Amino acid sequence: MRIRIFDTTLRDGEQTPGISLSPDQKLAIARKLDELGVDAIEAGFPVISEGELRSVKMITKAGLSCDICGLARTNKKDIDAAINAGLDYIHTFIATSDIHLEYKLKMTREQALEKAIEAVEYGKSHGLQVEFSAEDATRTDREFLKKVFAEVAKAGADRIDIPDTVGYSTPEYMAEITKDAIAATKLPVSVHCHNDFGLAVANALSGIRAGAQCAHVTINGIGERAGNASLEEFVMALKCLPYDQKYETGIKSELIYDTSRFVSRIVGIQVQPNKAIVGDNAFGHESGIHTHGVLSNPLTYEPIGPELVGRKRWLQVGKHAGIHGMNAMLGEYGIHPTDLQSKQILDKVKILGDQGKQVTDVELLSIASDILGEKGIKRIVHLTGFSVSTGIGTMPYAFVKLNVDGEDFIGTDYGVGPVDAALNAIQKITGKISEIKIKDYGLASISGGSTALCEVTIRVEDAQGESVSAKSVGEDIVTTSVQAVIDGINRIMLKNMLKEKQLS
Amino acid sequence: MRIRIFDTTLRDGEQTPGISLSPDQKLAIARKLDELGVDAIEAGFPVISEGELRSVKMITKAGLSCDICGLARTNKKDIDAAINAGLDYIHTFIATSDIHLEYKLKMTREQALEKAIEAVEYGKSHGLQVEFSAEDATRTDREFLKKVFAEVAKAGADRIDIPDTVGYSTPEYMAEITKDAIAATKLPVSVHCHNDFGLAVANALSGIRAGAQCAHVTINGIGERAGNASLEEFVMALKCLPYDQKYETGIKSELIYDTSRFVSRIVGIQVQPNKAIVGDNAFGHESGIHTHGVLSNPLTYEPIGPELVGRKRWLQVGKHAGIHGMNAMLGEYGIHPTDLQSKQILDKVKILGDQGKQVTDVELLSIASDILGEKGIKRIVHLTGFSVSTGIGTMPYAFVKLNVDGEDFIGTDYGVGPVDAALNAIQKITGKISEIKIKDYGLASISGGSTALCEVTIRVEDAQGESVSAKSVGEDIVTTSVQAVIDGINRIMLKNMLKEKQLS
Repeated sequence: MRIRIFDTTLRDGEQTPGISLSPDQKLAIARKLDELGVDAIEAGFPVISEGELRSVKMITKAGLSCDICGLARTNKKDIDAAINAGLDYIHTFIATSDIHLEYKLKMTREQALEKAIEAVEYGKSHGLQVEFSAEDATRTDREFLKKVFAEVAKAGADRIDIPDTVGYSTPEYMAEITKDAIAATKLPVSVHCHNDFGLAVANALSGIRAGAQCAHVTINGIGERAGNASLEEFVMALKCLPYDQKYETGIKSELIYDTSRFVSRIVGIQVQPNKAIVGDNAFGHESGIHTHGVLSNPLTYEPIGPELVGRKRWLQVGKHAGIHGMNAMLGEYGIHPTDLQSKQILDKVKILGDQGKQVTDVELLSIASDILGEKGIKRIVHLTGFSVSTGIGTMPYAFVKLNVDGEDFIGTDYGVGPVDAALNAIQKITGKISEIKIKDYGLASISGGSTALCEVTIRVEDAQGESVSAKSVGEDIVTTSVQAVIDGINRIMLKNMLKEKQLS
Repeated sequence: MRIRIFDTTLRDGEQTPGISLSPDQKLAIARKLDELGVDAIEAGFPVISEGELRSVKMITKAGLSCDICGLARTNKKDIDAAINAGLDYIHTFIATSDIHLEYKLKMTREQALEKAIEAVEYGKSHGLQVEFSAEDATRTDREFLKKVFAEVAKAGADRIDIPDTVGYSTPEYMAEITKDAIAATKLPVSVHCHNDFGLAVANALSGIRAGAQCAHVTINGIGERAGNASLEEFVMALKCLPYDQKYETGIKSELIYDTSRFVSRIVGIQVQPNKAIVGDNAFGHESGIHTHGVLSNPLTYEPIGPELVGRKRWLQVGKHAGIHGMNAMLGEYGIHPTDLQSKQILDKVKILGDQGKQVTDVELLSIASDILGEKGIKRIVHLTGFSVSTGIGTMPYAFVKLNVDGEDFIGTDYGVGPVDAALNAIQKITGKISEIKIKDYGLASISGGSTALCEVTIRVEDAQGESVSAKSVGEDIVTTSVQAVIDGINRIMLKNMLKEKQLS
């Protein structure tokens, strides 16, 4: 069965508190969604501001292949704004639950129904495709909801949507009212699920299982409060879970990860590491039992391969590590310790882990080089001295002192900020061999207070497109960031050096 | 019905790649979980390292009220380690799916079953309470799974757990095999659900609806890959959703938010803003329609009140804002514009929003003061000059120039890092009136590269415990952080000033 993907990242997603997108940013996201293969985009809510109207106009004129929809309340002003934005497809809504009617709309059920019918008729008389939502449907009296859906269908609505506005539905109830809506209207039905109890995707899937033909979703599950059903989880569940029926969508799943990161950067909302499908850790393994299994057959500890969503698997050692995983990581660098050496290396790794420390590739290689007595796999660049200044009305500049393979070098440069200045100064010394770009940058305060430890995680990429992550912990955000950069440079250089070793 | 909460933050949660906890940190989390009211804690996997053994020993001796459990594979070495750690309750597991048997264990079904029975008998003969998990249960042949559960029950197991090891189950299938397990064993059954498709909580709830009496959960849903069912979502769904049966747990829900933040800080894994229950935005509102509804009756756009989980509601203005929400925010500061003034203020807010800018309280008040011509509600502290230095082998120090109510001041101080130094220098000038602490600190790179814009979000608290969030965007992490601090100071001072105004 072909399921329709209606993406509302640009409407419900943008209503996330703290997100404000300019028209150019909205257009860039719309293009990305179109490439991803969504069937419809809710481009915005044209009546709310001049800029929003401009955004929607730009998107309707961009020549995208997907349907473009706009939100409108059940009044002429909102629908006229949608028409003015160049839309031929609107999503119009009015609340039908008693709590919304009493406290927000101050209307009777009959008045709300009348407004709904009028809006659908007005939209249809202007040649629009009309999708109708009964806001807060899941807290609406069930008989009244059926009546509303039946009446708007009679008034000419093309599609019906069931919003679980405050994420209050169970999958069981979502199935029941989906069946109601289909029976009452014979129209294509969508479900629009919120995630207040973590059930948005389960509720959306339950709607589909009950006969809905479409779900409203957002990239990374952004949206009001706890957000909406996330596109990536919903689409991959439909594609991969062992249902008794086959479901298909138009989504090019291998573009999912890239789209997720693109949206995250533009809207400024981070994706947590343990987010399904697109979180940093979704295809990462540390524990010994898991890495051992994954090395024999990735499907032992992964429900799907990472390449299916445009990602790569990664392994890491730590206190839960086992011999198999660690040796596999060392093997990637062309290092093959004996059984005794492996045990010695692992013991050192576990001691660091027990102290609450992370063990990066570079540290693992450094430990291995101590045990194996091999000089070639030592850390290559050491930061031995560093000084940086910045402020208001001054140019950030940095001095760095590096020890590269035993020799000292001093470099200085400026930049847009202290970390950029330090990176430029480092690259003046290391030149082409460390030509890297910082791709992602994350900082977390590990405990409270301005004297707290902070953790900097960066992803760096070299000129060949090889990318690694690096992490550093410290009290000073600038020094800690620069140490993460040095760690990243070393990891990239190690990778390249060992690649050459293997080739030669 | 009373549902048992088995928390595995310290075992499956700690297996999150990148998390390594010291024994002291594990004990601190165990105490916090005990206060929260969990029924059982899985304290760790004693055999994996010396530090882990020490951690579990410390937790078993800490005099907590909840049950303390430890993980062990189905072999004597692992179970002996658990006994050695002082445990009288183990969670022992062996994989039963063909893919795990073939590629990881290299055993037949019969061999795995034999190991399972031996381990249960060994545990029982040492007086332990034994919970048995058939790893990868949801991908195990259904008849074989029933047989394994029946045999381990016969061998004396006290509890049966059904792990959805790679998050591959649908809620429907989880219900079916839960019923199987209960029928085959007549024992209390737990479900252990992973979140690879975003269904962990839905699957756990489905297990409960089918008769399971317990779920394995973690704080913030941390764990291998996409993590486990999150305690906060699972518990609040059981408590609040409109099921036909009443469910109870021992969790003190008002401690949930505090526990979530505590664990996030210690493990260094951030919670995304759109995470259900505990994310920053779960009880935040921006859009005009939503703030209007919430002001009439919070339950229009919130399924539960934030105080139920130890939180507060917050509103924000932006391009989706409406008159009602904005006037309510101004009203909190004792400002009551006329209808015309309100419209003028809102127009300015929307222009900023259309440019992709956020409008903080301070900016809103600043706009309002321009329109109303009131001097008293202007920004109080302006950062007019700033210079900071840091590095390796040097003490971070800062000079700041502030304009406070029209008068210039210069201050200097040092600190553990450049932001701490600047904060100290600022407080030397502003003294007691701005005695604040930075509570949370977040930095996100908005686009890639070291020249990218970064966004700093901080939460500051004053001596009276009043707390506000502040945000700043810029290229230089230090200057941007200091600007966020200044914004935080202004917001705290404004709040206090206007509070005094209202009192007088």
